[in-house]
Amino acid sequence: MSYLKKSWNVVHNKTVEYAIYNSEDIFNPENDIMLIDSDIDGSNRFVVVDQFVYDIYNKQIENYFESNNINYKIVPFESSEKNKNIENYIKLFKQLDEFPINRRNEPIIAIGGGVVTDVIGFVSSCYRRGIPHIKIPTTLMGYIDASIGIKTGINFDSYKNRMGSFEPPKYVILDKYFLLTLPKRHILNGVGEILKIAVIKNHHLFELLEMYGTECIESKFQDEIGMNILNISIEDMIEELQPNLYENNLERCVDFGHTFSPALEMKDIRNLLHGEAVCIDIVFSTILSRVHSLITKSEEEKVIDLVKKLELPYYSSVITPELFWESIIERTHHRDGMQRIPLPTDIGEYCFVNDIKYNELVEACKILNSYK
Amino acid sequence: MSYLKKSWNVVHNKTVEYAIYNSEDIFNPENDIMLIDSDIDGSNRFVVVDQFVYDIYNKQIENYFESNNINYKIVPFESSEKNKNIENYIKLFKQLDEFPINRRNEPIIAIGGGVVTDVIGFVSSCYRRGIPHIKIPTTLMGYIDASIGIKTGINFDSYKNRMGSFEPPKYVILDKYFLLTLPKRHILNGVGEILKIAVIKNHHLFELLEMYGTECIESKFQDEIGMNILNISIEDMIEELQPNLYENNLERCVDFGHTFSPALEMKDIRNLLHGEAVCIDIVFSTILSRVHSLITKSEEEKVIDLVKKLELPYYSSVITPELFWESIIERTHHRDGMQRIPLPTDIGEYCFVNDIKYNELVEACKILNSYK
Repeated sequence: MSYLKKSWNVVHNKTVEYAIYNSEDIFNPENDIMLIDSDIDGSNRFVVVDQFVYDIYNKQIENYFESNNINYKIVPFESSEKNKNIENYIKLFKQLDEFPINRRNEPIIAIGGGVVTDVIGFVSSCYRRGIPHIKIPTTLMGYIDASIGIKTGINFDSYKNRMGSFEPPKYVILDKYFLLTLPKRHILNGVGEILKIAVIKNHHLFELLEMYGTECIESKFQDEIGMNILNISIEDMIEELQPNLYENNLERCVDFGHTFSPALEMKDIRNLLHGEAVCIDIVFSTILSRVHSLITKSEEEKVIDLVKKLELPYYSSVITPELFWESIIERTHHRDGMQRIPLPTDIGEYCFVNDIKYNELVEACKILNSYK
Repeated sequence: MSYLKKSWNVVHNKTVEYAIYNSEDIFNPENDIMLIDSDIDGSNRFVVVDQFVYDIYNKQIENYFESNNINYKIVPFESSEKNKNIENYIKLFKQLDEFPINRRNEPIIAIGGGVVTDVIGFVSSCYRRGIPHIKIPTTLMGYIDASIGIKTGINFDSYKNRMGSFEPPKYVILDKYFLLTLPKRHILNGVGEILKIAVIKNHHLFELLEMYGTECIESKFQDEIGMNILNISIEDMIEELQPNLYENNLERCVDFGHTFSPALEMKDIRNLLHGEAVCIDIVFSTILSRVHSLITKSEEEKVIDLVKKLELPYYSSVITPELFWESIIERTHHRDGMQRIPLPTDIGEYCFVNDIKYNELVEACKILNSYK
C-alpha cells in the first residue's frame, strides 16, 4: 500500500486470573477471606451492600471491619434493574472521591445480587482507570451467574447493559448461607440461569432439576443435592467463560435465554427480574427451535413441563412478535451482523442459527399462547 | 484457613496488539488506511472529529466515506479540557444508539487531539462493553503522546481523568500534515511531552531540542530533523509503555511532569492546556530535584534555559505549596500509598522518590518565583 509508511507494533501479553472461593461465616472477624492479598491494619475499605442484606447484617459487617482495625465506608444500595443506572454510577464515583482509597491495595467490596456486583464491577473498572473489587454474591442469580464472570454494566437509554466493561474481580467469595434469607421469588430467579445451562449444555443437570428441583427450591439449595446442582452450574459456566472471557468468539451457548430477554426486561423493567426474563426467553427459544425444526414437540414439552413443575415464569403480556424482532435486530448488531442465536437441538445440545424469520416469531408466539 | 473451602480458578491469557501507522493524504478515497480489517461496502462508521479539523476537512471526510460507499455519521467535537466531561460522554452514547454500528467490524473513528481520542477511547471501551476504535491524532500532543498509549478518560468531580479505562485502539494513524494547520500554542503544547521524555530518559533528545527545537517549532516538525525528533519521542514512549501497558508497575518514568500537573490543570482548567501544565510541572519537578539534592544547579539551569529558549511556559499564578501538596497526596492514592515521584538525577536519568516533604515544596516554589 503506497500510502502506508513506517509503522510500529505494540504487543503485550496479559494474564487474567481470579479465584472463586467457597467460604462460610464470612462476617466472623476471624475469617480473613475478605482481606487476603490486601493492606489490612489501618487501611480503607469502600463497601457497597444490597439494602436488604444491609438491613440484616449491618451490625455484623461493621463489627467485622472494626475488629480488623479497618476504616470503612458502607454504602447500602437499593437493588433493582431500574437502579442499575447512570445516576447511581455517578453517585458512587462521588462517594469514592469523598472516601479516598488507594488504587491497588484497598479493593472495593460488593455484597449483593447481580445488580450490585454489575454496577460495582463497572464503577471499579472506570475509577482511576480500574481499581480492584471483590464480589460477594448474596442471591442465587449472583451465586451461579453474575459473580462468576467478568461482565459489568448499567442500563442506559432503555438498553440493558448498554454501558459496561469486562473487568475481572480480584476474587469472588461464595457463601451459600446468604441464600437462606432469600424470598422464593429470588430463588426462582436464579433457577432461570441454572435451567439455561441444563437445557443448552447439560442433560444430566436437566435430569437433576426434574428429579430434585422442587425440593432444592424448597430447601434453598442448602442440602447436598442442592450444593451439587450449584457446583455443576458454576463449573459449566466457567467451562464456557474461561476460553472466551472477553467474548472474542461471539457464538456463545450461554447466550441462550439472552436473545429476547434484554428487550423483554427493559420493556417491563418494573415487574420482571433478570432470571424471570431469561426463563421466559428459554421457553420461547425452545418453542422457536421446534418451529425451526431443530427439536421435536416432545422435547419442547419436556422443557415446558419442567418450567411448570418448578413454577418458573414462561409468559409475559408484553411479548409480541414485533418486540422480539426488534430484539433480534439489536442482538444482531451486538453479535456483529449475524443473529448467532443459540437454540437447543436436543436437551443439552445446541447449534447457532442465523436465519430466523419474522414469521417464525409469529408462529412461536401463537404456540406460547397455547401453553398459557 | 479453616473458613476456606472448595474453590475454582479462572485463568485466561490475552494478547493485546495494535499498530501505529504512518500515512499521508488519509482523506484521499484511494487511501484505505482508515478501512483496513473492517467491513467496508455498505457498512457504517461513527466518526468523531475535532471541531477545528472538521471546519477545515469536512468536505474531504464526507467525500472519503461516500466514495467508499460507507454510511457515516460525523460528530464534530469542541475539544477542551472542560468538554472532556460526563455530559459529552453520555451524549455520545445516545448518538451511538441513534446510529447503530456492529459490535466488532465497524470501528468508531476518532480524529482530533488528546481530548477527542481520550473521550472516544473511553466511550469505545464502555459501549456494549467495548467496541473497536481507530485513533487519528491531529495535534502534536496526540501524535507523540495521547494516541500512542491505551489510556482513555474524562475529567470528573474536579479530578483529571477520574473516569477512564485502559482500552487498546484497533490501530493508530499518524499523518504529520495535520500539524501544519496547528496554531503555535498547540505545537508548544506537544513539545511539553517531548521535553518530558528528553529530561527524564533521553539525553540525546535533549541535545536535539537544544540545537533544533526552535526551528522544528517554526517548521511544525515537517522537516527531516523534526520527523526524527517525533520518531524518537514515539519510540521512547513505546519502550516505556509496552512492558507496562496496564500500569501493573506504578513506578513509571513517563509520569514525570504528571505529579503536580493534574492539580494545576484542574485548578486553571479554562487557561491551561495539558502540555502547558506538564511543562510547568517539568520545571517545578526539576527544581524540586535540586532541592532534594539529586541534581546540581547547573543541571537545573540547563532545563530552565531550554524551556525559556523554546518559549515554553514554566510558571502559573495558581501555584502554591498547598495546591502541590494536595496533588502529592492525591497522586499517592493513585500510586497505591507511596509517592513514587520520578525525578531527574541528571539530564536523561531518573530515580523514584517517596520522601518529598511539604517544606521542600515551599523551597521549590521560592526558587521557581526567582526564575520569573
